[in-house]
Amino acid sequence: MRERPAVLFANETFYRCFSDGDHEAMASLWAALHPVSCLHPGWEPLFGRQAVLKSWQPILKEHVEVECLDPEVQLYERAATVVCYEKIGQNILLATNMFVPEAGEWRMVHHQAGPTRGRPVSSFMKEKPTIN
Amino acid sequence: MRERPAVLFANETFYRCFSDGDHEAMASLWAALHPVSCLHPGWEPLFGRQAVLKSWQPILKEHVEVECLDPEVQLYERAATVVCYEKIGQNILLATNMFVPEAGEWRMVHHQAGPTRGRPVSSFMKEKPTIN
Repeated sequence: MRERPAVLFANETFYRCFSDGDHEAMASLWAALHPVSCLHPGWEPLFGRQAVLKSWQPILKEHVEVECLDPEVQLYERAATVVCYEKIGQNILLATNMFVPEAGEWRMVHHQAGPTRGRPVSSFMKEKPTIN
Repeated sequence: MRERPAVLFANETFYRCFSDGDHEAMASLWAALHPVSCLHPGWEPLFGRQAVLKSWQPILKEHVEVECLDPEVQLYERAATVVCYEKIGQNILLATNMFVPEAGEWRMVHHQAGPTRGRPVSSFMKEKPTIN
């Protein structure tokens, strides 16, 4: 079970790179020794480290504030996924992020994000009025 | 490299179950010993074998014709993904299907499908007019 926090940390790193527009850190997070793929919302699929990292350059330049909500980790023998909501402004997306171990660290190998009618529980909690 | 056809076969099985409305075969395809998750287009995320299989019941009853196009396999140590287009009537979706080995077979552990502006190459080729 000790892998779960490490996977969540890798997932948080992804969203921190995203919000900070940090392309160098994003490049370090994506796997270098495994196949990678990325399905940005609405885009055609991207395969290979070069194509995936290139796709992030214009996105990261926009310095979009992205919040990751309700992350759920699924652990496998040599892989892990995190399913989570992405709050980008008033838009809510649902994402799959996949990681594999590489040189002792969880590195990203796949990302897909798309629209959803679902709403994160943690977002509802935040919006709940407090009684004074 | 011999795992690639086996992963593609598992992916084809998924779309055959989908088109045939075969819930029993779909239940056999989804992993029983690993965590499973499913992100139907627009839905909130589903976790666990019971919730995922239950979600397929009404979908499979509709006997929707689904065509899988341009499947791309990514192989990892103990996991694989297939990224592919789904042609459902005139709609084109983009999907991630994840599989892990379980009792010597590739079993499904994750599915996400969502809208895309991308178009499958194989679909274009099919639509290309032939010169007589």
